[in-house]
Amino acid sequence: MKIESVDFFYLSMPEVLDIGDGSQDALLVRVRTNTGAEGWGECESSPLTSIAGWCTPMSHSACKPVSHSVLGKPVDEPSDIRRLTSEVRRNSFDLLQADHTFSGVEIALWDLLGRHLEQPAWKLLGWNRSFPKVAYASQLFGDTPEQTYQKAVGVRSKGFRAAKFGWGPFGINLAADEAQVRAAREGLGPHIELMVDAGTIWGEDVAQARLRVPVLEECRVTWLEEPFVSGALKAYRELGKGLTGKLRTAGGEGAHDPFVARNLMDFGGLGFVQIDAGRIGGLESAYSIARYAQAHDIRYVNHTFTTPLALSASLQPYAGLENSVYCEYPTEASAMARNLTTHSPVPDDDGMVRISDLPGLGMTLRKETLLKYLRTVEIRLSGKLIHQTASLD
Amino acid sequence: MKIESVDFFYLSMPEVLDIGDGSQDALLVRVRTNTGAEGWGECESSPLTSIAGWCTPMSHSACKPVSHSVLGKPVDEPSDIRRLTSEVRRNSFDLLQADHTFSGVEIALWDLLGRHLEQPAWKLLGWNRSFPKVAYASQLFGDTPEQTYQKAVGVRSKGFRAAKFGWGPFGINLAADEAQVRAAREGLGPHIELMVDAGTIWGEDVAQARLRVPVLEECRVTWLEEPFVSGALKAYRELGKGLTGKLRTAGGEGAHDPFVARNLMDFGGLGFVQIDAGRIGGLESAYSIARYAQAHDIRYVNHTFTTPLALSASLQPYAGLENSVYCEYPTEASAMARNLTTHSPVPDDDGMVRISDLPGLGMTLRKETLLKYLRTVEIRLSGKLIHQTASLD
Repeated sequence: MKIESVDFFYLSMPEVLDIGDGSQDALLVRVRTNTGAEGWGECESSPLTSIAGWCTPMSHSACKPVSHSVLGKPVDEPSDIRRLTSEVRRNSFDLLQADHTFSGVEIALWDLLGRHLEQPAWKLLGWNRSFPKVAYASQLFGDTPEQTYQKAVGVRSKGFRAAKFGWGPFGINLAADEAQVRAAREGLGPHIELMVDAGTIWGEDVAQARLRVPVLEECRVTWLEEPFVSGALKAYRELGKGLTGKLRTAGGEGAHDPFVARNLMDFGGLGFVQIDAGRIGGLESAYSIARYAQAHDIRYVNHTFTTPLALSASLQPYAGLENSVYCEYPTEASAMARNLTTHSPVPDDDGMVRISDLPGLGMTLRKETLLKYLRTVEIRLSGKLIHQTASLD
Repeated sequence: MKIESVDFFYLSMPEVLDIGDGSQDALLVRVRTNTGAEGWGECESSPLTSIAGWCTPMSHSACKPVSHSVLGKPVDEPSDIRRLTSEVRRNSFDLLQADHTFSGVEIALWDLLGRHLEQPAWKLLGWNRSFPKVAYASQLFGDTPEQTYQKAVGVRSKGFRAAKFGWGPFGINLAADEAQVRAAREGLGPHIELMVDAGTIWGEDVAQARLRVPVLEECRVTWLEEPFVSGALKAYRELGKGLTGKLRTAGGEGAHDPFVARNLMDFGGLGFVQIDAGRIGGLESAYSIARYAQAHDIRYVNHTFTTPLALSASLQPYAGLENSVYCEYPTEASAMARNLTTHSPVPDDDGMVRISDLPGLGMTLRKETLLKYLRTVEIRLSGKLIHQTASLD
């Protein structure tokens, strides 16, 4: 089969709010072959910018649009997709956005190949079996400790075994942060695992992070996520060295290629590496990190905050890792994200998510949702049309 | 003064060839204030993709277009520009291309402020004086050793004190590479410094790089540039450890934020850190790396491969570093790049480039060149025009 078309569909809620909810828009990718095979993926990135990374003209030999490396290429077996990854990295390495653009394309290719070969994507990647994951309810802190407490009570009532709170007001004021973390623990009760996401609020300021360690340990928090930006390796290393109890650092969602994630593991002393397959270059790049984490006794966690399609994609790379047990599970997604697919991976009564055995990513899109939230894109260069949103038919 | 408009101008040669010449297109940025002040900068990046990073709608609170943090903001003193850098990093950290987009905007702001305050940009950044730099002729290897030899002879005849050869056929075949490096040395004669740029050809394969070390040492090469991709810290470190003679590694041009460059210094054992101000976030980010390099006894080198405007910008961040003496000087730029400005920093009879004392970047654009090579851009979202190239008036 040859890759005949790659089409991008930019979906958005009618109004996008200035909050940390990443499910307010989405960039879906449809790949089709000359034989009529089809697959869907999703980029976790700025939609219009990623589309431009697909259709922009070449600037020079190492700054080609992603389309250059993909269109017309064969896709008959997993090695074909792996080869495309190398090609894109070589041909587009001066095009910063290329990793984000390609991620959705690559995911769609695994979906396509899985459907064609009637295998789930995780099997094609190389796993023999899949292990169920502990879904952790992933949500924003409330504006007040009382709101956070109520959210935590809600999580407990829904049967989750773990919950993460993050962003919102967290990270600015120590006393307020302590109240927030204690409210979360109180609302969850003693048995549900608690994670905290600082959303890079402290930049590279290790002292700010250290001030929060006592309350995080007191509330038996499993990990402190993104105390610093992904590049701040020295800060990660310094904070990690001082953690002698159960608490560990988590990070990596910002990794736009495998090196960023590997450096956080090699030099930053991470306990948990969190990978967004829709940013790092797709499933193969994420899978390489899952294997790397396994070899270095670090736990892999998916990062996802958008649609059920992205959630399913995010589970494939570490399906076969028995001791990487946590799964980020968005509980506050937008109506658009919630209604994108006919079904979604759902935690069972034990709070576990089972990874689908269906071919590809195992998801079916609702065309009416795509039509409802679609934003068409048209780009002209010197008057000439170089990109136009394709038909959904 | 308030930032009233930021306009992007995408210039391109009529035909862009599939070669490593980065001067075949350019993305210029013009910033104007409500008081009529004006400045110009340049992004070293994919033009259309970077424009999209400016005008795309917000996806969520940490994925805003660069325009969100810039338009309407005050620009009266250097601290205003520094504040914008932090704002963009916080508001756009999930928008990968944002660093490339902002770089040109930030450079234009220093040019604007310098003109307004009648100071060169390097003084506003914090340097008291500027030191002349040794211009090294930066060029591609010839297709054959004979061509490389002729290029080297040409460099010598032009009075350069140093020359770098890179890309082209280098890195694939050991014997061919040895012949290329020896041809370069022979053509330069014994007194001109020689640098070699591997253009990341070996990915993270340390063994491939090591195979070339003997010929590089034999030919007294000053640095081996980008043996690996910017993220491959372990590979850089391993190669660097084995270099016991004069030869050192150089890298960092791919750094799209200061952390990438700092990690290469902290963990990768670089001897020379090469920064493209048009990628790393602009002059302030580059200046922070110049200071960091100075404190860690590492030499800073500008990276530039496009226009005289970009060359002038690239010199500002390390103007005051006396012992960071090398300056990348493109000698094979396109007609568009060569004719963009009324003059260019030119090496004197001693092969030294003096950094301009004129206000801002000290450059004057040729409007006829902009008009000649301009590609207009028009972007529509759901039919609504969200971006259109501004008038050059």
